[in-house]
Amino acid sequence: MSRQLLYFDDLKVGDTFTTGSHEVNAEDIKRFAGEFDPQPFHLDESAARDTFFGGLAASGWHTAAITMRLLVTGGPHLANGIIGAGGDIEWKMPTRPGDVLHVESEVLELIPSRSRPDRGTLHLRSKTLTQRGDVVQVSTARLMVARRVS
Amino acid sequence: MSRQLLYFDDLKVGDTFTTGSHEVNAEDIKRFAGEFDPQPFHLDESAARDTFFGGLAASGWHTAAITMRLLVTGGPHLANGIIGAGGDIEWKMPTRPGDVLHVESEVLELIPSRSRPDRGTLHLRSKTLTQRGDVVQVSTARLMVARRVS
Repeated sequence: MSRQLLYFDDLKVGDTFTTGSHEVNAEDIKRFAGEFDPQPFHLDESAARDTFFGGLAASGWHTAAITMRLLVTGGPHLANGIIGAGGDIEWKMPTRPGDVLHVESEVLELIPSRSRPDRGTLHLRSKTLTQRGDVVQVSTARLMVARRVS
Repeated sequence: MSRQLLYFDDLKVGDTFTTGSHEVNAEDIKRFAGEFDPQPFHLDESAARDTFFGGLAASGWHTAAITMRLLVTGGPHLANGIIGAGGDIEWKMPTRPGDVLHVESEVLELIPSRSRPDRGTLHLRSKTLTQRGDVVQVSTARLMVARRVS
């Protein structure tokens, strides 16, 4: 897939982007959790049953990492890459085994740098959805985006 | 290591927690990036040299995931686990190969649930630092914490 290379100056508030999709399985959920979030509700179906989650659930950080993968491989093709200074994140519901996730993003704000004429800040809101249209995560990232040198 | 099991009612604003440490190497950085953030500055030393980062740098989501691991394995030992509804995150500088990270956390706010007497929300600010004392990440999480049933 060839995607247009985007500079700060090419973006407008309200621009939207939709990524490809990624299926999450129980093995991936447990492997990520084993390395980064080793809690029973992320590691084992039967141990998860009697917890808050009522069954195996992906770590929120796993959902966040998959969201990043989807954005990098099929979101806005920013000229200098997707480089975040930070943002906020909200997990609406857990990702479950068998969920097929995709990301829908929207440009919320574009702030040129006052000190660095070669860059600006993009506020990008991204919703991560399942194949059923359920929103599992909403995040707003502050991304550093290169300006077109004229 | 045996840690005291903590309920919402056991916590006070200003309580602090310090985790153990975790060393990050180039191989881990590339493996995480290959799966979740496949951009040149996270994948290859020489490709990274001419980018914004000036050398191999961990994905911010990798730093976030390691922070979670440190909190789960050596942070506040919350009775129902560390369950986040969301929060904000700021990456101050990238994690580099050889960095040894640990996390210092502080209780910012404790909000009892009005509708659910069995739980409350903890706002926990966590700084992720290197062995040199450089802060690579600051995050504030909204965690769901069980109340002590009396």
